[in-house]
Amino acid sequence: ALSQLGQPTTNPTSPEEATLERVPSPHQGKRYVVRFTAPEFTSLCPVTGQPDFAHIVIDYIPRQWIVESKSLKLYLTSFRNHGAFHEDCSVAIASRLVELLDPEWLRIGAYWYPRGGIPIDVFWQTGAPPEDVWIPSQDVPGYRGRG
Amino acid sequence: ALSQLGQPTTNPTSPEEATLERVPSPHQGKRYVVRFTAPEFTSLCPVTGQPDFAHIVIDYIPRQWIVESKSLKLYLTSFRNHGAFHEDCSVAIASRLVELLDPEWLRIGAYWYPRGGIPIDVFWQTGAPPEDVWIPSQDVPGYRGRG
Amino acid sequence: ALSQLGQPTTNPTSPEEATLERVPSPHQGKRYVVRFTAPEFTSLCPVTGQPDFAHIVIDYIPRQWIVESKSLKLYLTSFRNHGAFHEDCSVAIASRLVELLDPEWLRIGAYWYPRGGIPIDVFWQTGAPPEDVWIPSQDVPGYRGRG
Amino acid sequence: ALSQLGQPTTNPTSPEEATLERVPSPHQGKRYVVRFTAPEFTSLCPVTGQPDFAHIVIDYIPRQWIVESKSLKLYLTSFRNHGAFHEDCSVAIASRLVELLDPEWLRIGAYWYPRGGIPIDVFWQTGAPPEDVWIPSQDVPGYRGRG
Amino acid sequence: ALSQLGQPTTNPTSPEEATLERVPSPHQGKRYVVRFTAPEFTSLCPVTGQPDFAHIVIDYIPRQWIVESKSLKLYLTSFRNHGAFHEDCSVAIASRLVELLDPEWLRIGAYWYPRGGIPIDVFWQTGAPPEDVWIPSQDVPGYRGRG
Amino acid sequence: ALSQLGQPTTNPTSPEEATLERVPSPHQGKRYVVRFTAPEFTSLCPVTGQPDFAHIVIDYIPRQWIVESKSLKLYLTSFRNHGAFHEDCSVAIASRLVELLDPEWLRIGAYWYPRGGIPIDVFWQTGAPPEDVWIPSQDVPGYRGRG
Amino acid sequence: ALSQLGQPTTNPTSPEEATLERVPSPHQGKRYVVRFTAPEFTSLCPVTGQPDFAHIVIDYIPRQWIVESKSLKLYLTSFRNHGAFHEDCSVAIASRLVELLDPEWLRIGAYWYPRGGIPIDVFWQTGAPPEDVWIPSQDVPGYRGRG
Amino acid sequence: ALSQLGQPTTNPTSPEEATLERVPSPHQGKRYVVRFTAPEFTSLCPVTGQPDFAHIVIDYIPRQWIVESKSLKLYLTSFRNHGAFHEDCSVAIASRLVELLDPEWLRIGAYWYPRGGIPIDVFWQTGAPPEDVWIPSQDVPGYRGRG
Amino acid sequence: ALSQLGQPTTNPTSPEEATLERVPSPHQGKRYVVRFTAPEFTSLCPVTGQPDFAHIVIDYIPRQWIVESKSLKLYLTSFRNHGAFHEDCSVAIASRLVELLDPEWLRIGAYWYPRGGIPIDVFWQTGAPPEDVWIPSQDVPGYRGRG
Amino acid sequence: ALSQLGQPTTNPTSPEEATLERVPSPHQGKRYVVRFTAPEFTSLCPVTGQPDFAHIVIDYIPRQWIVESKSLKLYLTSFRNHGAFHEDCSVAIASRLVELLDPEWLRIGAYWYPRGGIPIDVFWQTGAPPEDVWIPSQDVPGYRGRG
Ligand SMILES: [Ca+2]
Ligand SMILES: [Ca+2]
Ligand SMILES: [Ca+2]
Ligand SMILES: [Ca+2]
Ligand SMILES: [Ca+2]
Ligand SMILES: [Ca+2]
Ligand SMILES: [Ca+2]
Ligand SMILES: [Ca+2]
Ligand SMILES: [Ca+2]
Ligand SMILES: [Ca+2]
Ligand SMILES: [Ca+2]
Ligand SMILES: [Ca+2]
Ligand SMILES: [Ca+2]
Ligand SMILES: [Ca+2]
Ligand SMILES: [Ca+2]
Ligand SMILES: [Ca+2]
Repeated sequence: ALSQLGQPTTNPTSPEEATLERVPSPHQGKRYVVRFTAPEFTSLCPVTGQPDFAHIVIDYIPRQWIVESKSLKLYLTSFRNHGAFHEDCSVAIASRLVELLDPEWLRIGAYWYPRGGIPIDVFWQTGAPPEDVWIPSQDVPGYRGRG
Repeated sequence: ALSQLGQPTTNPTSPEEATLERVPSPHQGKRYVVRFTAPEFTSLCPVTGQPDFAHIVIDYIPRQWIVESKSLKLYLTSFRNHGAFHEDCSVAIASRLVELLDPEWLRIGAYWYPRGGIPIDVFWQTGAPPEDVWIPSQDVPGYRGRG
Repeated sequence: ALSQLGQPTTNPTSPEEATLERVPSPHQGKRYVVRFTAPEFTSLCPVTGQPDFAHIVIDYIPRQWIVESKSLKLYLTSFRNHGAFHEDCSVAIASRLVELLDPEWLRIGAYWYPRGGIPIDVFWQTGAPPEDVWIPSQDVPGYRGRG
Repeated sequence: ALSQLGQPTTNPTSPEEATLERVPSPHQGKRYVVRFTAPEFTSLCPVTGQPDFAHIVIDYIPRQWIVESKSLKLYLTSFRNHGAFHEDCSVAIASRLVELLDPEWLRIGAYWYPRGGIPIDVFWQTGAPPEDVWIPSQDVPGYRGRG
Repeated sequence: ALSQLGQPTTNPTSPEEATLERVPSPHQGKRYVVRFTAPEFTSLCPVTGQPDFAHIVIDYIPRQWIVESKSLKLYLTSFRNHGAFHEDCSVAIASRLVELLDPEWLRIGAYWYPRGGIPIDVFWQTGAPPEDVWIPSQDVPGYRGRG
Repeated sequence: ALSQLGQPTTNPTSPEEATLERVPSPHQGKRYVVRFTAPEFTSLCPVTGQPDFAHIVIDYIPRQWIVESKSLKLYLTSFRNHGAFHEDCSVAIASRLVELLDPEWLRIGAYWYPRGGIPIDVFWQTGAPPEDVWIPSQDVPGYRGRG
Repeated sequence: ALSQLGQPTTNPTSPEEATLERVPSPHQGKRYVVRFTAPEFTSLCPVTGQPDFAHIVIDYIPRQWIVESKSLKLYLTSFRNHGAFHEDCSVAIASRLVELLDPEWLRIGAYWYPRGGIPIDVFWQTGAPPEDVWIPSQDVPGYRGRG
Repeated sequence: ALSQLGQPTTNPTSPEEATLERVPSPHQGKRYVVRFTAPEFTSLCPVTGQPDFAHIVIDYIPRQWIVESKSLKLYLTSFRNHGAFHEDCSVAIASRLVELLDPEWLRIGAYWYPRGGIPIDVFWQTGAPPEDVWIPSQDVPGYRGRG
Repeated sequence: ALSQLGQPTTNPTSPEEATLERVPSPHQGKRYVVRFTAPEFTSLCPVTGQPDFAHIVIDYIPRQWIVESKSLKLYLTSFRNHGAFHEDCSVAIASRLVELLDPEWLRIGAYWYPRGGIPIDVFWQTGAPPEDVWIPSQDVPGYRGRG
Repeated sequence: ALSQLGQPTTNPTSPEEATLERVPSPHQGKRYVVRFTAPEFTSLCPVTGQPDFAHIVIDYIPRQWIVESKSLKLYLTSFRNHGAFHEDCSVAIASRLVELLDPEWLRIGAYWYPRGGIPIDVFWQTGAPPEDVWIPSQDVPGYRGRG
């Protein structure tokens, strides 16, 4: 049974403490894509302790499981006081979901706010996407300066 | 004969009650795509009973049949007081149309309004699209937060 | 000789009456694409007689002929008092051009205004486009509701 | 005490049944504007029973009270199975809030989805806004057809 | 009683034949604005007989009456085979509504499609708008060429 | 009688040679605004002879006369081989129209393409606009560099 | 002397701990506006402890002092683990700056991410802005749902 | 040696008179794409003598040579008083560059301003682009009418 | 006589060295606005020596003089290796132009690229603009983060 | 050890002097893409000494190393007083990174500000990208003129 959905919960204080949960995919025979868009992500710079912010988009093709969305939200919240570099953090989130869900395919796009005037985006997927599943572009606008 | 087009109708109270109707495709020898964009979709959360909203786009390549559009509208309206999870509901709509139309190919993009600050999109197609039919991108803008 | 270009003309009152004309392609050895964008298309609903509107985009690769553009304009104008369903009308326009031009390839995108809150788009092409000709996306924005 | 915030609630089945609640304004000496943007509004056409949809934006300057936002959400939800014309419904929502809050000033912009190809917007305010309070434009994009 | 709403109707063949109808304003004590956006307007050039197209936006503050929207739609449709110059036609539509409704205030913005590469817009209002009624900008994007 | 409308014409080779023509305003008692948007303007730099380009928008309130639009188009075309500085040319066009039309009010916005990386815009009006006539913003997007 | 600029600093753990600093305005005789745009703001819900996010824009006209920008950044960061309601928090930030700077005028626009599908914006200014100082619109896009 | 760069020049009066010049590609071993965007193109209609305007984008992969950009600008300027049809002119520009540069690959997109309400775009490339060179979309927005 | 226009020039190495030049306003009796948009501005941080960037827009109403645009460009270029704070630099540019031109009115909008994730904009004008001169909004988009 | 990160640094005065540094990729087994967006790039024209500006986007797939971002920033800053042609400079930046990082794949898009009204974009990649790594479009908007 799910331990968080429909229950009062407290925010996990680190990714390790967070409990990601899964439920059976409702259309097991169908290969569909689920996209989560999480524009409220924040973590800390492991060197300076300054807050970092990112807009994160996750796409995946379930096999047996889909992620329970309240637990996903709490998991993302758990980075709030956690220090991690951009490249590392982005791929780590995806890896944790892969471990939980054993999906047919998964990708993450992490669009970080600029530091030093230069934002970093990180893009990772588990491998080439299957050709017969429809996966639209994430189409997050590129960063621009001013004007 | 069609039972709903050009007739006064009442809203079906559940998807099961709705009568989806079909008419012969007007250009049987031609493989074209029909796109419906339905920004007025709403259903209920099966757990909390709260309303959910979605912008839905359906593309298909008819074989013998095309869906009669008034009956499609009534079918989509029938989810108004029906409870279903996002992933489930999105794929169910597509499946019902596949059953009715036996199309060469069909896909659905369901772009749900955010819950917990994180919207879910669901993308499903019946299989790889045929290579010689033109299927433009749905190009629905991604969700953003504020600013 | 062309019968309409540079002449006073009257609007043809039906597609059958319209005279589509062609001239030799100016770069016969070169395979290029010509795109027409016609945002001023209107016809009638064959059932209710109510006006319908569409934004239409046509792309084609000429073989020997290109369409004379004034005659194309008059041809599109001829649907003004003509009744036709969306799917039918969109493919019919393309078919008439194919018949006239015998192009290497042709496609039409017809982006109809909403009826019952749900617009219909129709996409058709003569077949898979040749791989060594450049055909940009039509990139017409999707329909949205309000907000 | 508040009866709905932080409590399990059920959706009120009509506007009359909904309990709008208020709490004291946190900065009584300060004249500020609160804006709610509610893109998930739906009601029924009182004549045909067909669903209507609107994107609603409310601005107000509190005097003693601010509206409790969960109760506002439930109030807006209560129109789901309620029949009302566009002009009537838009002004009625504003009137109910005025009655509850006795605000210094309040306005509503209701941007309805098109019917018959022509959307209706309704704009109402309690009177001329005070000159020394800052009230930004709602700046909801106008409706466009296609193309 | 209304003669067109909820009845089968035929399209009036000229503005003179069209029957604009009115109903009592639902909030007589309240001064609100109603906006209609009609992107499907077409008429004929009185000189050449060529079709003209416009995107039309009408704002008004009712006194006793509001226009019945189906009759407005049919009225606008009645210009389909009617010849009129841009400036004339735009102001004539507004004048007819003023005559019908005796509104406190009314304006029309008519955004015509380009002829000779140069579109014409026409803006008219009955007089200075009342200062204590909220009338948002129509904010229709300006015409641009290409690029 | 008009000398150019509905006649074959040749392009005037300088502004002086161009014949701007006027016709009576169709709604003499009504004070409305006419906007022309001319994105195809080009002239020459009087120093270097290099072509300059501008997007020009003209708004005016007719008194007795409106400008005949074909003659306006030909007038604008007459700058094609004419040398003039940006500030000078922009105000000169407006002045010529004022002389012809004796309008109640007129303004011009001239949005020039960049030279040396810095575009110049010129804005002029005959005086403060009348308060009871509705004159929407021209709202031409500002220039931006890249990105 | 400034205690934070050009020094290593740690993040203050609450707004009370943060040290906002000021420096003399560089153009004391000139009345100009300074705008800060802070899209990386986050605080906690005082009831649930869940993170809240906002895009914040601050405009002010200095009298003797301008705020030192590193100290402003650290002050905004200090809300990271602080609980406050939207209306309260938005006005509190502005009030703290007013206390520090004694500006001629100041305003804040706080554009919060949606909760329950309905975002709240808060707008406050110290009073009517002076008429001879130029204060551009903040022009932050309104929230939209999907589609 | 180059005859035009860094020299005073006069505008060539026809494409034939223009001197396109080339310089060695600076990274001979590297296969890169150069894109020129020329929004200031104008020519004449060969039938009516009326000016035509286009936004032109050229992409190419140099082999030994790149085009000197001042000479390209003068070449494009040389069409100012030259008559040519849209399809013809667009392909002719590309052909002239191919002749000069002997590039590995080249394409042109010519986005013409509307005539008769219908703009024409012309797209041509020398052949299928090489698969291992990166050629981004030109992504010029489609034409739209009004609204 | 002008010392820089039409002459070879070298970049001035500091604002003090730059020679801003003026020429008589071509329409002395007419009160018009000139807008310069300079998206290529860069200076240095006076503390760290790091480059800063800004998009700058200047509007003014000439009295007797207009600024010669090549000299303006060189003046702006002269900040390239000059250290100045954002607020100071923005107002200083405007002040220098005021001194040169003695304009009826002038304003500057300086839209700086973000530092520490928070961009600063500076807005200054010489005083309230005259009421009968038309001064459009600068309408530079606000900064946003990501997403 | 890194020589620049977390240390006070001075700006290198030429690309040769700049010290690009690398650190081990945090997810060696994972093939991800890192994107840097640098809208603050400026160099000098090698012929005229005039400043050039570009918006630069770099994508790469690390093998063993990722570039340390502060050193990348300083490297890009080092072009500030360095003369180089657009095509040359763009490819040189990419080449230097390839040399440092030995990446699996790398590309650069350099979007230069217009000179002579015509901007140049340069696109280069090390070769065909691997098929099973996800590389989103850079999607930088094309240049447009005005209007
Ligand atoms: Ca930054
Ligand atoms: Ca895109
Ligand atoms: Ca797109
Ligand atoms: Ca509709
Ligand atoms: Ca409709
Ligand atoms: Ca707007
Ligand atoms: Ca036209
Ligand atoms: Ca606007
Ligand atoms: Ca330039
Ligand atoms: Ca605007
Ligand atoms: Ca939400
Ligand atoms: Ca605005
Ligand atoms: Ca696109
Ligand atoms: Ca704006
Ligand atoms: Ca230029
Ligand atoms: Ca794009």
